Amino acid sequence: MTNSSTSEVPVSANVPPSDAQARVSQFMKGLQDDVCQRLTELDGSSTFLEESWQREQGGGGRSRVMKAGTLLEQGGVNFSEIWGDNLPPSILVQRPEAAGHRFYATGTSMVLHPHNPYIPTVHLNYRYFEAGPVWWFGGGIDLTPYYPFREDVVQFHQTLKDTCDQHHPDYYPTFKHWCDEYFFLKHRQETRGVGGLFFDYQDGRGKLYRGPDPEGVAAQYSDRVGELAERSWEDIFAFVQSCGSAFLPAYTPIIESRRGMSYGERERQFQLYRRGRYVEFNLVYDRGTIFGLQTNGRTESILMSLPPLVRWEYSYSPEPETPEAELYKTYLKPQNWLG
Amino acid sequence: MTNSSTSEVPVSANVPPSDAQARVSQFMKGLQDDVCQRLTELDGSSTFLEESWQREQGGGGRSRVMKAGTLLEQGGVNFSEIWGDNLPPSILVQRPEAAGHRFYATGTSMVLHPHNPYIPTVHLNYRYFEAGPVWWFGGGIDLTPYYPFREDVVQFHQTLKDTCDQHHPDYYPTFKHWCDEYFFLKHRQETRGVGGLFFDYQDGRGKLYRGPDPEGVAAQYSDRVGELAERSWEDIFAFVQSCGSAFLPAYTPIIESRRGMSYGERERQFQLYRRGRYVEFNLVYDRGTIFGLQTNGRTESILMSLPPLVRWEYSYSPEPETPEAELYKTYLKPQNWLG
Repeated sequence: MTNSSTSEVPVSANVPPSDAQARVSQFMKGLQDDVCQRLTELDGSSTFLEESWQREQGGGGRSRVMKAGTLLEQGGVNFSEIWGDNLPPSILVQRPEAAGHRFYATGTSMVLHPHNPYIPTVHLNYRYFEAGPVWWFGGGIDLTPYYPFREDVVQFHQTLKDTCDQHHPDYYPTFKHWCDEYFFLKHRQETRGVGGLFFDYQDGRGKLYRGPDPEGVAAQYSDRVGELAERSWEDIFAFVQSCGSAFLPAYTPIIESRRGMSYGERERQFQLYRRGRYVEFNLVYDRGTIFGLQTNGRTESILMSLPPLVRWEYSYSPEPETPEAELYKTYLKPQNWLG
Repeated sequence: MTNSSTSEVPVSANVPPSDAQARVSQFMKGLQDDVCQRLTELDGSSTFLEESWQREQGGGGRSRVMKAGTLLEQGGVNFSEIWGDNLPPSILVQRPEAAGHRFYATGTSMVLHPHNPYIPTVHLNYRYFEAGPVWWFGGGIDLTPYYPFREDVVQFHQTLKDTCDQHHPDYYPTFKHWCDEYFFLKHRQETRGVGGLFFDYQDGRGKLYRGPDPEGVAAQYSDRVGELAERSWEDIFAFVQSCGSAFLPAYTPIIESRRGMSYGERERQFQLYRRGRYVEFNLVYDRGTIFGLQTNGRTESILMSLPPLVRWEYSYSPEPETPEAELYKTYLKPQNWLG
C-alpha cells in the first residue's frame, strides 16, 4: 500500500477521506468569496469582475480581478480546480511517487497591489494536490512593503504565529523560515519583502520541512525541525483552513492604518521601481507561476499577480539615510520580527 | 584529441587559433564602440554612461546605458568577457563535453527601447564560448515592433539575408527559422516580434541547426537543414563579424523613417503594455538572462534589457480592426517576410 514506506505512520491517519477533494475545493472557493467581499467593502468604489474558465485538459476556475479601485490599483483573487494525466516535471522531481498517475489540484491564490505606497503588496496561496499514492497541502502568505512600519510587520507576523500555534508549536518557526528562503531573490540578494509563512508537500509524514528545495538553502534550518508524530489529513486541512481564515485579520488592519497617509511622486516612483522585484520573483522563481505555465494554465489568471505598472531603472540604489534606504537596510533580510 | 568523434571534420579546421579569445573579444568590444557611437549621434542629446565591472570568479565587462535620451527611452549595450571553473547546468545539458572543464565566454549584447512607439525595440547578442574540447559561437538579432510597417520589417530582414548570403545560402533560412522558434512565448502563443536571426552552438561540425532545443519545437525544421561540409573557426567568426556589422544598416534606417511620426497616449499605453511581453520573454525563456543569473553575472547588466516602464493589464485584447489588432493578426506569427 501507499504508506508502507513510512512505518511509523498508520495507514489510517495518512489517507484522505473520500470527500477530500470536494471539501478542500469548497473551502478554497469560500476563501475566495470571503476575501473578495471584504476587499470590495474596503475599496468602497470598485468591484471584482469574475471570469469563469475551463481548461481543455480538465478542470477550470474563476478569476476575479479588481482594476483601478480606490484602494487597490489591481487585485486578483483566483480559484482553480484542475486535473489531468500527469503532473509537470517541476513537481515530479519533488514527488517521484506521483509519476504515471493522474493528478488533482485545487487552490486559491491572490495578489493585491494597493495604490498607496504605504500599504504593502500582499500575496496568498493555498493549494491541495492528489496524485496516485500521494497527496499534500502547500501554500503560504507573504507581505511586501515599500515604506514599511515595524508595527505593521509585527501585527502581520503575530497574527500568523497565533494561528499556527493553535495547531503545532513548530509550525510558525518552521514555515516562517521556509518563507524567508522561498521568497528570496538570489540575483538581488534580497528577500521579496518581510515574509510570512510558506510550506509545501505537507502530507503528515514526519518532518514539516521536506527537501530538497530548489533554492538549496534549506539545509541550514533542518536542525530546527524535529521529527513529529504523524499528522492526519484532517489535522493538516484544519491548519490550512486556519491559515486561510487568518488572511483578513493579518492584512486588513494595515490597510486601515495606512490608507489615509498622503504620498507624492517620490513614493510613487519608488513603489513602481520595487514592483519590478515582484515581477522578477514571479517570473524567475515562483513555483506557482511555473506550474501554471507548464500545465497550460490560463495565462491571464496566472499572470494577474504582475503589477499594473512597473519601472526598472538601471543601477538604481537609494540615497543613504532615506526611507527608501531603510527598506533595504532593515527589512529585506530574514529576521525574527517577534523578537 | 578533441575532434576524434567527428571523423568527417579534419582537426585542423575545427580548432580555434591560439589568439581566438583575444580576436573575438576585440571584435565584441569594437562592436559595442561602433554601435554606441552611432546611437549617440542619432540620439543627439544624451550619452551612454559606462560602468566597468569585475566578476569575482573571473573576468568582467563594461556596461553602457543611455537613459532618457531624445530617441532612446533606455538603451543598454553591454560587453563582457568572463571565465571560470564550470559552465552552468543549462549549458552543460547542451554541451556535455564541456563538463569538468574551465570555460571562457565573451560577447556583446544590446537592447534598445525607443520612446516613439513607431520605432521597434531591437535586441542583439553575439557570443563566443570555449570549454575544454569544445568551442562555439551563438547569438542573433531580433526586432519587436509595436506599430509595425511592413516595409521596415522587409528592410530589416533583407539586410540580414544579404549578410548571411555572403557566407552560406543556408544561413538565412535556417537562422531565421531558429529565431522564430526561440523568440516565441509559448504561454501567449505569440512570437516576441518579427524575428531576425538566431543561432547557437555553431562549431563548424555538420548541421547548422543543433538540437536539442529546450523549447522542443525545433524538430519540425530539421528537414530543411542539410549536412554541411565542415566550416572552420575562421569561417564562423567571419560570419559573426558580418552579422555584428549588419546591425546599424539593418536598424538605423527604421529609426530615421519613424522618429518624426507623432503619437499620443493611446500608442504610448499600447507600447507599455506590449513591453510586458518583453519582460515575460526575458525572465521566463531567455538563455542569456538565465546564463547570466546562474553564473553570478552582474545583475544590473543582465537586466538592463528590461524596459524602463511597463504595464500589465488583466485580460486585455485589442479592439478588432485597429492598428493594435493588426500587430497580433499579421505580425506575431512566423512567416516569410521576403515573399
